[in-house]
Amino acid sequence: MSVTAAKGFTAAGIAAGIKENGNPDLALVVNNGPRLAAAGVFTSNRVKAAPVLWSEQVLKGGLVSAVVLNSGGANACTGPKGFQDTHATAEKAAEVLGLNAGEVAVASTGLIGVLLPMDKLLPGVEQAAEALSEHGGEKAAIAIKTTDSVHKTAVYEGDGWTVGGMAKGAGMLAPGLATMLVVLTTDADLEADILDKALRDATRVTFDRVDSDGCMSTNDAVLLLASGAAEVTPEYAEFAAAVRTVCDDLGRQLIGDAEGASKDIRIDVVNAATEADAVEVGRSIARNNLLKCALHGEDPNWGRVLSAIGTTSAAFEPDRLNVAINGVWVCKNGGVGEDRDLVDMRYREVVITADLAAGSETATIWTNDLTAEYVHENSAYSS
Amino acid sequence: MSVTAAKGFTAAGIAAGIKENGNPDLALVVNNGPRLAAAGVFTSNRVKAAPVLWSEQVLKGGLVSAVVLNSGGANACTGPKGFQDTHATAEKAAEVLGLNAGEVAVASTGLIGVLLPMDKLLPGVEQAAEALSEHGGEKAAIAIKTTDSVHKTAVYEGDGWTVGGMAKGAGMLAPGLATMLVVLTTDADLEADILDKALRDATRVTFDRVDSDGCMSTNDAVLLLASGAAEVTPEYAEFAAAVRTVCDDLGRQLIGDAEGASKDIRIDVVNAATEADAVEVGRSIARNNLLKCALHGEDPNWGRVLSAIGTTSAAFEPDRLNVAINGVWVCKNGGVGEDRDLVDMRYREVVITADLAAGSETATIWTNDLTAEYVHENSAYSS
Repeated sequence: MSVTAAKGFTAAGIAAGIKENGNPDLALVVNNGPRLAAAGVFTSNRVKAAPVLWSEQVLKGGLVSAVVLNSGGANACTGPKGFQDTHATAEKAAEVLGLNAGEVAVASTGLIGVLLPMDKLLPGVEQAAEALSEHGGEKAAIAIKTTDSVHKTAVYEGDGWTVGGMAKGAGMLAPGLATMLVVLTTDADLEADILDKALRDATRVTFDRVDSDGCMSTNDAVLLLASGAAEVTPEYAEFAAAVRTVCDDLGRQLIGDAEGASKDIRIDVVNAATEADAVEVGRSIARNNLLKCALHGEDPNWGRVLSAIGTTSAAFEPDRLNVAINGVWVCKNGGVGEDRDLVDMRYREVVITADLAAGSETATIWTNDLTAEYVHENSAYSS
Repeated sequence: MSVTAAKGFTAAGIAAGIKENGNPDLALVVNNGPRLAAAGVFTSNRVKAAPVLWSEQVLKGGLVSAVVLNSGGANACTGPKGFQDTHATAEKAAEVLGLNAGEVAVASTGLIGVLLPMDKLLPGVEQAAEALSEHGGEKAAIAIKTTDSVHKTAVYEGDGWTVGGMAKGAGMLAPGLATMLVVLTTDADLEADILDKALRDATRVTFDRVDSDGCMSTNDAVLLLASGAAEVTPEYAEFAAAVRTVCDDLGRQLIGDAEGASKDIRIDVVNAATEADAVEVGRSIARNNLLKCALHGEDPNWGRVLSAIGTTSAAFEPDRLNVAINGVWVCKNGGVGEDRDLVDMRYREVVITADLAAGSETATIWTNDLTAEYVHENSAYSS
């Protein structure tokens, strides 16, 4: 499954020794064609890691033959030497695979501000090239994990064509994409500009609406590669829906595995004047630490929801706001609604519905609760 | 001290029974003149509590004779009944003090979405009026506490005149003011428009730059009352500096007592192109949960600082950024700087210096770390 579900792709995941604990830390995905079309979406953080700067250039050509991904080090804030290291990684992959380095994308994840151990990474690229397989998708997905507790893959089967993918990410998930590496592959026969449109349409309503902790990474990358090996060109709408489905599935898996979380929180903003209003309100609710703590304590504290809505510029009247938690309208017309004791908070998934009573647009944002485990995991991360 | 340090003021703090645990929960501050000038700054949250809506109207006249403050209930999101309750509170104070209700400001803090027990609050106003004293400032400061572990007061002695004040707040501190009630008093003889200017100039660079957890309250209010009893009219610059000093002192006390915090974090943004850039960058750093966790773990994780700067629209070049933590320049020119092991993180105060290398403007933002205790306190708050 994963990135090798679609025809025309091989992949590998190996332990190169970048991670001191010996876990898999290097993945390679190769597009064997006949087509080598690709699109990419990268972090909107202005402090970008070396592999992001490199891969943005590679993607401009709309052609990617291979992707090298490593965990165990982000290669971010590493200066000119960090960029040279990314370049050397692409050169090494190109050398062993018989490609041009300008067709090799690179992605990294892990600690910021630390140079990668190139004496381990470059031999690892050789080792991964030797391990390439049509069944290597799962191993590749495992090798890109950092604090992820499980590897994440998804597949959509079209009529004679397939979209598959893998993702890593378990925190630092925020709009504009976040420490999240995603590689999607398809054997559909499509040109780069179609891939680009489908990928942007999909990420805008999936990964961009996953906001675990409001923190945006320096390293996010989502790549979509097409091999054309299925010799089928689906309709745009069908293909775009397939990409969106796979992105939605992976995004949901990221939230389900967020660092230290005990709740997956779905925020449906409804009856907004504009979609932008709905997204702004959803993000404000998703980033309210006090609400995230309250939901962790299974407390349907709707006052926190109203406080968060009140900080936005969205169109609404305070005394027309309604809020439901798990289907119980605990706030009606800006005041006390149904009995909060009716809200059943025992389950992992919590649904907050924020009714702005200002129009007919909607948006859904996913986030997590804030827990002592999140604090613990992130206060001990680099030590 | 507190609100009775300045001449012309009496105050009281009593237990009216609003809090179920019997702790003091009602404060009264009375301006006995001869002047009754006043200014106020309120939350910029668009979901405003009933007492904020009421007091904003009272302050428009620039004249306040008394302030009733209660803890134990925010009277926010309580609809028309909540507003009627605030009005009744002002009427009761006016009745027992022989004033017009339109001269009585009201402030509340506590749980959102719960009506106040007026059968306890109104008799409490009578009881507080009977307890009014020139030495009542400290008791008033104690009665407005919610989760505050200590009461907060400050005094500035001018040449023949005084500015004193009290504050409560221990979380939910954010720009635009946050669950923070502050009453400042002075016996200087000044008109309302001068008070208003001095108060806005002060809060802009003090309370507005205190951001404990990024959450903005529905109830914030900062009031400044002048009695003229000292019969002295100081120069504006001197008076403004006094108000700023008292606000700065109280703001620093709020950070020092923030819910569950183990670190007070001072963020100095330097060499910014504009003051607005410096403030935007400071707030972005202050709100980065991953950084706040890292600092809790005494980990000088400067990569989190760069990630946070990268999400802003401030003028900077990523490869010219410098970051110091407790004086050690751990990041130079966007990359690795001095040895992070040199950073001594043992003390409660942490100073982060973010050098944008883009100009000469500066701003300081104060925040706290994110701790398991914060999560615990806020997941159990309403239960």
